[in-house]
Amino acid sequence: MNQKFEQLQTHLDRFMALNTAITLFDWDSDTTAPPAATERTAKVKGILANEAYHALVNPEVEQLLNELKGHKDLDEIQTAIVKQLCEDFEKTAAIPAKENQEFKELVSHSICAWARAKKEDDFSVFAPYLEKLIAYQKKFADYRKKEGQTRYDVLLNDFEKGFFIEDLDRFFDKIKQAVVPLLKEQKAKEKGIDKSYNFLCYDIEKQKEFCAWISEYIGFERERGVRSEGEHPCTTNLHRDDVRITNHFYENNLESAIFSEIHESGHGIYEMGISEKLSQTPIGGGASCGMHESQSRFYENVIGRSKAFWKPIYGKLQETFSEQLGEVSLEQFIAGINLAKPGLIRTESDELTYCLHIMVRYEVEKKMINSDYPVEKLPELWNDLYEEYLGVRPQKDSEGILQDIHWATGDFGYFPSYAIGNAFAAQIYHTMKQQMDVEAILEAGELDKIKQWLGEQIHQYGMMKSAREIMKDVTGEEFNPDYYIQYLEKKYK
Amino acid sequence: MNQKFEQLQTHLDRFMALNTAITLFDWDSDTTAPPAATERTAKVKGILANEAYHALVNPEVEQLLNELKGHKDLDEIQTAIVKQLCEDFEKTAAIPAKENQEFKELVSHSICAWARAKKEDDFSVFAPYLEKLIAYQKKFADYRKKEGQTRYDVLLNDFEKGFFIEDLDRFFDKIKQAVVPLLKEQKAKEKGIDKSYNFLCYDIEKQKEFCAWISEYIGFERERGVRSEGEHPCTTNLHRDDVRITNHFYENNLESAIFSEIHESGHGIYEMGISEKLSQTPIGGGASCGMHESQSRFYENVIGRSKAFWKPIYGKLQETFSEQLGEVSLEQFIAGINLAKPGLIRTESDELTYCLHIMVRYEVEKKMINSDYPVEKLPELWNDLYEEYLGVRPQKDSEGILQDIHWATGDFGYFPSYAIGNAFAAQIYHTMKQQMDVEAILEAGELDKIKQWLGEQIHQYGMMKSAREIMKDVTGEEFNPDYYIQYLEKKYK
Repeated sequence: MNQKFEQLQTHLDRFMALNTAITLFDWDSDTTAPPAATERTAKVKGILANEAYHALVNPEVEQLLNELKGHKDLDEIQTAIVKQLCEDFEKTAAIPAKENQEFKELVSHSICAWARAKKEDDFSVFAPYLEKLIAYQKKFADYRKKEGQTRYDVLLNDFEKGFFIEDLDRFFDKIKQAVVPLLKEQKAKEKGIDKSYNFLCYDIEKQKEFCAWISEYIGFERERGVRSEGEHPCTTNLHRDDVRITNHFYENNLESAIFSEIHESGHGIYEMGISEKLSQTPIGGGASCGMHESQSRFYENVIGRSKAFWKPIYGKLQETFSEQLGEVSLEQFIAGINLAKPGLIRTESDELTYCLHIMVRYEVEKKMINSDYPVEKLPELWNDLYEEYLGVRPQKDSEGILQDIHWATGDFGYFPSYAIGNAFAAQIYHTMKQQMDVEAILEAGELDKIKQWLGEQIHQYGMMKSAREIMKDVTGEEFNPDYYIQYLEKKYK
Repeated sequence: MNQKFEQLQTHLDRFMALNTAITLFDWDSDTTAPPAATERTAKVKGILANEAYHALVNPEVEQLLNELKGHKDLDEIQTAIVKQLCEDFEKTAAIPAKENQEFKELVSHSICAWARAKKEDDFSVFAPYLEKLIAYQKKFADYRKKEGQTRYDVLLNDFEKGFFIEDLDRFFDKIKQAVVPLLKEQKAKEKGIDKSYNFLCYDIEKQKEFCAWISEYIGFERERGVRSEGEHPCTTNLHRDDVRITNHFYENNLESAIFSEIHESGHGIYEMGISEKLSQTPIGGGASCGMHESQSRFYENVIGRSKAFWKPIYGKLQETFSEQLGEVSLEQFIAGINLAKPGLIRTESDELTYCLHIMVRYEVEKKMINSDYPVEKLPELWNDLYEEYLGVRPQKDSEGILQDIHWATGDFGYFPSYAIGNAFAAQIYHTMKQQMDVEAILEAGELDKIKQWLGEQIHQYGMMKSAREIMKDVTGEEFNPDYYIQYLEKKYK
């Protein structure tokens, strides 16, 4: 049986190497490649994607998987790899290779079109690409959907196993009922908080220096990581010893880069914490998108916006920007970074309104994938939903429907994972507090203890466990969004 | 026949895409990747190299090439591609796939070992890798050598078709006879030139700004190019619309970065000038290493060290570094950048002594590849030859045998191309001057005219012509090193 697995390993190695190459091209496009390179490089990436597809989807792999599936001679990791592969195989094999390659090439071009559309504030630049992306995803979902599923169910389940429209409708309804009254209360408090300091002029080089420092402070390892700049902050993982994050800096917004840095570092710490034995295998990534987001948002919000976290390090920030923050007390800063105020931009939003931003996208995606909603009317739908949920209406598509990269990269059904991640984080935090004095640890600046706990409980397992299994093993109960409601109520009441 | 070529095209596309990925990994290792990534990334690169190997070396390609070879239905480009591929195929097929993959992985590790050895000034860190690299190259040359050839002949011919030990012994002998007396004359002149300005403290950020500017000034296109930093300045070509150069900046040496920038930009301009129809095909690179070096060194030396070139732009350099250069006249600067003085570092050397640096490497390589010379004795051999040819002796291996990256990347037989490139450049310059008033063009800052001429005469053809063919078509005669001797004598007498 081990000989069979070794045969499979050759295919896995090819699949891994080709995907790592594609990942590097994606990173490179985001950070380095010159503008004119797009077309020729898209050709390269299209071919590599096709190679990667055939590395996994071929008769030999199919036969090997059939022989290995459920076999008792395999060790724990091998078993998990075979299980994961069977799922991947089923998913990938359902889509014709040619269409898969066309889709990948389309994505390559779409990202550039989206970036230009956002820059020029012109939805019509991106619209034809978006229309094609949606058409592909509909077709792909049709190939794959099982009885009783809608197309959007298929996509949701890809990012968060075991979460479907039914679950999410219920989840978001619960959130909505809790958040709306809390938000009303906030409006009264808001006026007492002076946050004008955040929008002064902050030297970008100094911001970069501080962000480099805080990233390492919370546990992102420089020896195994790269930090760079990109249009949209994101995390890229070549393997556990090469994890990369990007950030985007604004001269007139201090918070933006700092919390993006903490967020992406949280993703990075997860990837760096995955067991050596799992990295570069098909189960060498995070358990799910939601679990990944739970880690980044745990660092960004649960910890990163707490007073205990800033107590030992706010002085350093004040020193870096003495002119702007010299007169801003720790208390004022903490109030500022926790101010809940409906806005237009998801990545700039506070913890309280965040899920409302996700709900907009969730509703738009349902329309995109489960109906024939015309693409040109999507900006209006977006704007109407913002007005309904958040009480604000975008005046420009660059601050509206064009703000996120996700659809340009072909990812529909991803956004809900952000909200689920928030809920995971709150439930994990509830358990963590029972096991150690988190506040004292933060005040002592011992962030390595946090990293170690998360590493042992969650990170090391990679995809050996599903997100739902992790939640149960770590917290002792099934996923329960009530902890998140309690967390928000405690914080904002 | 076109159907056959289309079948071949599929293989070519895979080969191109995989090699582009490997190129990107190389660039990334040089500029971005974190130190701990090496081992896992080497695995990825090893697999990709193996894939690339099999993309070309397989029975189907062999059969297609046999059918297509010399066929009259192919157009000019297809014919050149088939011809080139047959040569590549023969060369690659001679080496067992497994050994090829092992070698590529070794190179990946060797580059890092070399960088560490150079940094720590410790040859013993690199020696075991060098020993293995030499052993592989000997073995590979044995697989391939034809009657009457030595191993080193095989390697020389790889980089410069039609150049063997016999040619190079004669070539270098000619150079030696001309350069040694010139160098003696220089020693007398040298004392009158004050070059101390070059070794003052030059702000690195300002150097970067000036280099970015001068790179574009001579014709490196920002839209199709990337500039970055690396240990050793070099040029990387993903395709004609994504050409990348690196540079290395020193606070106490102004010239170093400026002339490296011009040099690498020269390589870059060549790659950017290759015809659209040829880019991303097997004949989409420069004609030969020597021809490539002729272009970079033409820009760096023939043009870049001339008074006419600096006349319109020296003021800008003076403004950038007014404190250091305010009192340095254009005449003094030109004398400074043309000062011939034997030194230890090839990349920092002047035009006159440059070929002597190459001769050292040529003699060392002959010993490495054509004898069983012990690796641990190579530093001494290197130092002895420097003393013999240049009259200087390295005190540290980091300034001696460890200075160049080439052997670490597995390239033996490359160095002589630098010298041949110098000779190509002088012969090309002789023709160019007959066709246009180069001095007036430089004084008017019309560098695009130079680029256009080189583009039409040389760059556009890629590998459609050999270097020897290009020399004949451009200059109307066979390669003739006498132009180079005349050029040096005119300049240094």
